Amino acid sequence: MAEGLPMRMPAEGLPPRIRIHEVGPRDGLQNEKAVVPVEVKAEFVRRLARAGLTTIEATSFVSPEWVPQLADAAELMPMLADVPARLPVLVPNERGLDRALALGVREIAVFASATESFAKANLNRTVDESLAMFAPVVAKARAADVRVRGYLSMCFGDPWEGAVPVAQVVRVCRALKDMGCQELSLGDTIGVATPGHVMELLSALDGSGIRTGELAVHFHDTYGQALANTLAALQHGVTTVDASAGGLGGCPYAKSATGNLATEDLVWMLHGLGIETGVDLGRLTATSEWMAVHLGRPSPSRTVRALSGITSHQEQ
Amino acid sequence: MAEGLPMRMPAEGLPPRIRIHEVGPRDGLQNEKAVVPVEVKAEFVRRLARAGLTTIEATSFVSPEWVPQLADAAELMPMLADVPARLPVLVPNERGLDRALALGVREIAVFASATESFAKANLNRTVDESLAMFAPVVAKARAADVRVRGYLSMCFGDPWEGAVPVAQVVRVCRALKDMGCQELSLGDTIGVATPGHVMELLSALDGSGIRTGELAVHFHDTYGQALANTLAALQHGVTTVDASAGGLGGCPYAKSATGNLATEDLVWMLHGLGIETGVDLGRLTATSEWMAVHLGRPSPSRTVRALSGITSHQEQ
Repeated sequence: MAEGLPMRMPAEGLPPRIRIHEVGPRDGLQNEKAVVPVEVKAEFVRRLARAGLTTIEATSFVSPEWVPQLADAAELMPMLADVPARLPVLVPNERGLDRALALGVREIAVFASATESFAKANLNRTVDESLAMFAPVVAKARAADVRVRGYLSMCFGDPWEGAVPVAQVVRVCRALKDMGCQELSLGDTIGVATPGHVMELLSALDGSGIRTGELAVHFHDTYGQALANTLAALQHGVTTVDASAGGLGGCPYAKSATGNLATEDLVWMLHGLGIETGVDLGRLTATSEWMAVHLGRPSPSRTVRALSGITSHQEQ
Repeated sequence: MAEGLPMRMPAEGLPPRIRIHEVGPRDGLQNEKAVVPVEVKAEFVRRLARAGLTTIEATSFVSPEWVPQLADAAELMPMLADVPARLPVLVPNERGLDRALALGVREIAVFASATESFAKANLNRTVDESLAMFAPVVAKARAADVRVRGYLSMCFGDPWEGAVPVAQVVRVCRALKDMGCQELSLGDTIGVATPGHVMELLSALDGSGIRTGELAVHFHDTYGQALANTLAALQHGVTTVDASAGGLGGCPYAKSATGNLATEDLVWMLHGLGIETGVDLGRLTATSEWMAVHLGRPSPSRTVRALSGITSHQEQ
């Protein structure tokens, strides 16, 4: 690759800086077949921080029976004590929160659904029952001065229900904010959204009293739409974008929910747009290549493949 | 996949209808390792037309020594006489044009470069020498009432020169228009462009007297940027978009130039945006799956994989 690419060409009306919420170690690894040794996970997080990522979702304090890939959360967190980045963790319930708090975690995330079908499939509860379950978790975290992010999955489409009405998403967003979530991550869990849908939802949230600065977008690249949707969100003023190094991950509970937006593909676009991320793309790509070796398969990120000289032909 | 997806959510300021210039049979197959039998090529074009594509670049009248994959152009074209679509063909020189004209071809394309390095590598000429070579070809085609498209490759970045100055691209675009090209396809041959760069080039072309309606965009997905760049082009008013069914293709003369924007990924976004294409996505996906069997490898299109239930895990 010749030097000076991507060429820096700012576009009007976009934020000058974006915070990337890196989800590879949690959302990525929880959905990979391979169970990665805890030392490799710790090194992954360290390398991501050295690549310039400032928010790295490290693991999940979910039951090991549900997510065996992340059963080592309590072992991992103390190994990351010296990592100079925000290290939020997912907690599914009060027991998970207590385990995280005991380890000194300063940021958590809870995981709600915009649809009844996915709430049932993922949490075995109705949407309102799951919100009732999260309320004391969020309250307890906030009381401990722990920052809380609320994930909302299936914000655009759902594998059982099809298209998800915008008003339904806004209602659950309001509920999460009202219970104390300081950031809401809008998830397109099955990757079906398109840019007009993204703009429609963001406009509806504006009208509901949720500030754009409180929002993050979380796109999956199942239909190749993630980066175009991200551009639409940036044009609306969103400044926090979730992505997964190397495009790791997916969702084991939803058919066809393949990988997250790859952090490298996102960074290529943002740097081309002259938007600061603090990320060193070369280091990040090297980290994803290193992790791909541990996972025994090539990265699904197109940027990682291009920069490492792996073409789709060689892979096949 | 549940019904009703992608959800139709128009965005303001976008064109109501897009013409897709399908390049799979030419730009796609010329870059595939496998040489596809002429009967399969003919059936591919017929299936693409049945899927609703109205412009299908069918083949190239380039020397068989250069592109053995398309050596059967003279055999293929008569087999397509009854296909209800525009069927442009690439011609590299006057000899290629004469062969195409003898077969009754009504549309051709010539293939120029925005950079000296690629003109040298691909055509063994300077940019101006290649323009001088094309001028009589375009004149002769126009005299025969044949429509002429001018491809311009390396409009954003070049593997040898890095970032390509916008003014340099505008100059060659003007030259192609002045010699009689009725449509200009702006190629991001190595896939490095980002949306601000796309907007910058389109704005510069506005200022040079070339109408947006005379332009097409031709993005490669090497760094995963193709669809976001397309969105930027649509926002600027571009109404012709090049894409390749199943994401076939690449460029054998430029390292790291992997596949074209997949037509299916494009159609998913356009239909979500409420933009008419005339394409039946199910039929198109089935066509790409059928071709993937002939090529002996899965389609690189994310939409094709998602709709056919092929996940990246199964592939690996």
